[in-house]
Amino acid sequence: MLCSMRSTPVAVSFLFLAGLAGVASADEGMWMPQQIPALADRLRAFGFEGDVQAFADLTGQPMGAIVSLGGCSASFVSGQGLIVTNHHCVQGALQYNSTPERNLLVSGVVARTPEDELSNGPGARVSVTTQVQEVTDDLMRRLAPNLTDRKRFDVVELWTKERIAACEKDGSRCRIASFFGGLRWFEIKQLEIQDVRLAYAPAKGIGNFGGESDNWRWPRHTGDFSFYRAYVGPDGKAAPYSKNNVPYRPKRWLKVSPKGGSPGDLVFVVGYPGVTERLQTYAQIEDMTAWQLPRSIRRSVEQLQILDELAHSSPEVAIKVETRIRGLNNGLTKNRGVLEGLIQGGALEDKMEQQRELTAFIAANPERRMLYGDVLPALAALDAEAAKTRERDAVFAGFLGGRGGGSLLGAASTIVEAAVNRPKKDIDREPEYQERNWARTREGFERMQRTLDRTVDRAFLRYSLLEAARLGGTERIEALDRASGLSADMSKDAAAKAIDAYLDRLYAGTKLFDKDYRLALLGKSSKEFAAVDDPFLNLAAALLPLRDQLREISKTRQGARYRLVPRYMKALLEKSAGLVAPDANGTLRVTYGRVLGVDSVDGLFYKPQTTLAGVVAKQTGQGDFDAPKLELEAIKALRDGRETPYLDPALRDVPVDFLSTVDTTGGNSGSATLNARGELCGLLFDGTYDTVVADIVYDPVRTRSIHVDSRYMLWVLTEVDGATRILEELGR
Amino acid sequence: MLCSMRSTPVAVSFLFLAGLAGVASADEGMWMPQQIPALADRLRAFGFEGDVQAFADLTGQPMGAIVSLGGCSASFVSGQGLIVTNHHCVQGALQYNSTPERNLLVSGVVARTPEDELSNGPGARVSVTTQVQEVTDDLMRRLAPNLTDRKRFDVVELWTKERIAACEKDGSRCRIASFFGGLRWFEIKQLEIQDVRLAYAPAKGIGNFGGESDNWRWPRHTGDFSFYRAYVGPDGKAAPYSKNNVPYRPKRWLKVSPKGGSPGDLVFVVGYPGVTERLQTYAQIEDMTAWQLPRSIRRSVEQLQILDELAHSSPEVAIKVETRIRGLNNGLTKNRGVLEGLIQGGALEDKMEQQRELTAFIAANPERRMLYGDVLPALAALDAEAAKTRERDAVFAGFLGGRGGGSLLGAASTIVEAAVNRPKKDIDREPEYQERNWARTREGFERMQRTLDRTVDRAFLRYSLLEAARLGGTERIEALDRASGLSADMSKDAAAKAIDAYLDRLYAGTKLFDKDYRLALLGKSSKEFAAVDDPFLNLAAALLPLRDQLREISKTRQGARYRLVPRYMKALLEKSAGLVAPDANGTLRVTYGRVLGVDSVDGLFYKPQTTLAGVVAKQTGQGDFDAPKLELEAIKALRDGRETPYLDPALRDVPVDFLSTVDTTGGNSGSATLNARGELCGLLFDGTYDTVVADIVYDPVRTRSIHVDSRYMLWVLTEVDGATRILEELGR
Repeated sequence: MLCSMRSTPVAVSFLFLAGLAGVASADEGMWMPQQIPALADRLRAFGFEGDVQAFADLTGQPMGAIVSLGGCSASFVSGQGLIVTNHHCVQGALQYNSTPERNLLVSGVVARTPEDELSNGPGARVSVTTQVQEVTDDLMRRLAPNLTDRKRFDVVELWTKERIAACEKDGSRCRIASFFGGLRWFEIKQLEIQDVRLAYAPAKGIGNFGGESDNWRWPRHTGDFSFYRAYVGPDGKAAPYSKNNVPYRPKRWLKVSPKGGSPGDLVFVVGYPGVTERLQTYAQIEDMTAWQLPRSIRRSVEQLQILDELAHSSPEVAIKVETRIRGLNNGLTKNRGVLEGLIQGGALEDKMEQQRELTAFIAANPERRMLYGDVLPALAALDAEAAKTRERDAVFAGFLGGRGGGSLLGAASTIVEAAVNRPKKDIDREPEYQERNWARTREGFERMQRTLDRTVDRAFLRYSLLEAARLGGTERIEALDRASGLSADMSKDAAAKAIDAYLDRLYAGTKLFDKDYRLALLGKSSKEFAAVDDPFLNLAAALLPLRDQLREISKTRQGARYRLVPRYMKALLEKSAGLVAPDANGTLRVTYGRVLGVDSVDGLFYKPQTTLAGVVAKQTGQGDFDAPKLELEAIKALRDGRETPYLDPALRDVPVDFLSTVDTTGGNSGSATLNARGELCGLLFDGTYDTVVADIVYDPVRTRSIHVDSRYMLWVLTEVDGATRILEELGR
Repeated sequence: MLCSMRSTPVAVSFLFLAGLAGVASADEGMWMPQQIPALADRLRAFGFEGDVQAFADLTGQPMGAIVSLGGCSASFVSGQGLIVTNHHCVQGALQYNSTPERNLLVSGVVARTPEDELSNGPGARVSVTTQVQEVTDDLMRRLAPNLTDRKRFDVVELWTKERIAACEKDGSRCRIASFFGGLRWFEIKQLEIQDVRLAYAPAKGIGNFGGESDNWRWPRHTGDFSFYRAYVGPDGKAAPYSKNNVPYRPKRWLKVSPKGGSPGDLVFVVGYPGVTERLQTYAQIEDMTAWQLPRSIRRSVEQLQILDELAHSSPEVAIKVETRIRGLNNGLTKNRGVLEGLIQGGALEDKMEQQRELTAFIAANPERRMLYGDVLPALAALDAEAAKTRERDAVFAGFLGGRGGGSLLGAASTIVEAAVNRPKKDIDREPEYQERNWARTREGFERMQRTLDRTVDRAFLRYSLLEAARLGGTERIEALDRASGLSADMSKDAAAKAIDAYLDRLYAGTKLFDKDYRLALLGKSSKEFAAVDDPFLNLAAALLPLRDQLREISKTRQGARYRLVPRYMKALLEKSAGLVAPDANGTLRVTYGRVLGVDSVDGLFYKPQTTLAGVVAKQTGQGDFDAPKLELEAIKALRDGRETPYLDPALRDVPVDFLSTVDTTGGNSGSATLNARGELCGLLFDGTYDTVVADIVYDPVRTRSIHVDSRYMLWVLTEVDGATRILEELGR
């Protein structure tokens, strides 16, 4: 599945540095909306007869209907704020509203009245991009060429903070995003709706039919769609959840097509792809192949073992860890696919060849030698330096991090750092501790309560401590050794014993499992909680000096990258020439392609569509293949002659999913798939296994995205769930 | 894989009774050669421009080149007796010639000189069908209508023996075969060559590439071909193995085409399909679904566990059990596929519908009611009677049987029965103990020495004894209980203890592991070895009365079937009308079809061909996917520009396997696949998983056979093994 963040193997801070332009070929390209008009000729060649200018108008039709959920994409499909996205994108909301007695993760939700719509909980967001403007020149005016790397970082950061502050004066949420690795910069303004509710989710046996067995696979039979509704205050402005809120009335929404997608159709996908790394240097991809991906795969496998055992211990724990298991599995399969693509698939070799060509291109001309000759060696030196402590740095990050999973140590660390930042002027605080993010941090603390579990938290902290215990003598985390009694010369068993004893002390002494207690601490200054003697806070405080030290190093390196990467990128663009889409960076993009099958392994062809017949064929009644009884009955009724407008005449069945050549990645999940008339004919939700490596090296022949057909969505709403309220809103 | 006997789940004696005609549709039909001229119009419609009469001339071109290996099919491909068949058909010969130091099962064999060709060992046979004549009227003259069932059996058996004796006077091997369930009878005369040698087998990593993982699967990349050579005495007549023998010079042999098979090509397959059961009664298929197949699957799984453990105990044992493991796995996968096809695939339901239609057809007309009205109920009553003791009968058969696997108790039982039959006149002996089979029995005893292993034999006898120990009170095998000390009221543990103690006695006391000792006993009369006190012979003798009793019952039932089944068949043929191919019965057949891909599961299409690219893609370097280094190097050389005449211009690669619509089954393995010019363009070696149920209910849409392309054979011989001697013989 193509949700973002959790599916990327590599720390975001690293990726940020090297989003490079792709070599244009076939349908490659996650285009910035404003680039689309320049693609008019290509689109005409694809048979497009609409207005290419429409894509550049972010508040017009269809772009005004496209929204971000943060990690997933979505779109308005009614004038009453109804939003369609993937089923796997509403997992968190289903989990938030589930209890062992009423497990919505399994049953799904059909809100029969407005009152039945369930709040997604604190921190839910729907973001609508309202304005994008280039601000590269503004930054360039500030960047004197003779700055030190460390100073350059500060200049960029201060400039970013100032621009954001100005941009957000009208209540919007803003972001300064770097494109082409810092060669160009854009300011992006978003309207942010904070009250989001679940209106409809099919049963797990439809929304996640095929489960992990089918994830990243074709043929696919997943009804991966669900509906949210956006709410605002009675004054029409964004407001936190309140009973008095009313449905948001968007100016633009998409018509859901009853015709779906058919082989050969031109389709667009509009959404928020997360990260691609197509033009990193060869050294970076080589490091990913040799170290990052194998490490990530090993950790996922080990952590899944831990979670599987815990999930079997009680139904409560099972609900708490389900989303995390799904995310880990998703990333694991994806990372395996990427690694296979890099090694067996030959992508790493292709990359080496590309770099060889770039080096030759630079060397071939004295001016280019002068402009770019030093860039690749300098970047390589920077990477080599970072590689020296990569194991320690990764262990430390995994140890303190885990905020996504909501770990207790992560929360303690946030409290400690917030207290350090609180006394400063807002402009001087680290970005994540600036006032504009306070509410988000509080919401995160509230939200984590639903997934927080003592056994799970301890098991994961134990896992991280065991990793830290294995670090070599020069890479030890000394503060941790002092706190826990670990040392480099301990045997494995002795280290495990020491860790268990230390964990006993940590968990016996802490009050941080109490949400209100956590929230109360968040407001306090360093001085105020000097008196608070919580073992988790003490550990977080002990680790702070190392954290600060690593942050300093990272800032200097980042400053160096601001200096080098734009030049590397310029060389690449000069070499490839023509219009190039920037690498994905979580901003709004448009991609186009065709509904089309593809050759799979030798001797096998992936047909472009699947049908209800395949649901019945895969059905086992258990595990990943457990379609609900109501659906099986509806299929039987169809076979017995019941009429439906959603039958595909060529297939003589209701279509379920389809393949297309559009270029997508993690974060695109839930993106509207539009036909040539701008109607929603499906939802993007996944790519094939052969496709995952395309994040790094795009393959114009094999790459395919997977969509749920709008006819399946409408058929399920009609025949399985009788969701008449939704259907009426959709005009069906 | 489509070798015979070991892949059929059901005792042959049972199947023999109910081979019924198929409903003609699409390409269905394993036609008797003499039926082909009547199919002229259908073949013309397929684009055939050759002489349809040629297929009816068994000694002409191409039919004179087709041979049987017993369980596999094959064909002459040179004037010096070179025979091509499947790699999996030469497993026994590879095993016979292997030692732990020189494991031909893995390395393969390339005989560089005539002296390097390895004898297949005693019992090897190549049979050429030389004459087929219908003898139905002759039998009908003997069958008075008022015979008792038991007497009818004897009349048929005596007639069969007399005809065979007369037919074999010229040194041929003859068989009286029943077609359409005893409605028609044919006398088949075969020339039998007894000295067969291995001339070439590729490495396991080619000949069995994909192994059990890919068995019955597509896409496939198996180079399932090997070469034998037939030898005869210097006088040109068949003779047992001797150094002085010379290559046999067949009158007919096939040209191996360098063009292989391409999509759309018309292809013929000529060989010896074993058993199909397409028009058994519904009750029989239901019994197969509910009892026989699940039982067979369970036993295969359990026996494979035993064999896997034993195989890991030593390399010697591993070689001894490899063929047996491969056979069990093959049957297991096939039986699972058949069961899936019957239940999930809906074949059982189709069968029920067919029978309903037949019943209605009979009931619709007074004359038909009179002729056939009693047949279905009478057959059902016969089956119901047999079902009462089916568990005991099956346990007893498995217990005494195992001749294929060469068990010691099977050998003892053969010795005991041979002694009982020896004093009788030859015409009065049970058929398997008639003089014409003595040499075969002796060869079997010699041959079994290569697979006989004390640990394996004991483990399997123990398995059978545990089965017998579980039989209910009314089904006990009393003679066995007396001999072993088992009883119905024993606990599971007590029974196991008793069995182990009994096995200790059996194996400590026997001398039957000695081949010469076994062979010496085979000649003795009952009186002569009354003095021989071997525990295995004692057990076999104790079981003899029950064996005789079961044989008597079986003869009476068979007599009843001779009375009923031909009438059932007549009703079926009357209903279907037109030309119908009889069910397969191990006799020479011709089938035709096209090279064609097929829809697999929903969303997936099986392309009609695979290529070398797929070998590389599947290669892992271990287990089932371990192509030899020489082949990988040859592929690399090809990619680097090395020329080969075996490249497919459309695929731009060397093709490996292809799919066709021909109708085949177990026993067809190794069959020549002929193009429209009668040249060998491939070898049939398997069917797809969706196809296995076609033995029972033919599916004209999904059924596909799998062939190795002659271009792959020639490419491997040339580029991988440099088998110049063979290539020259093939005219390459």
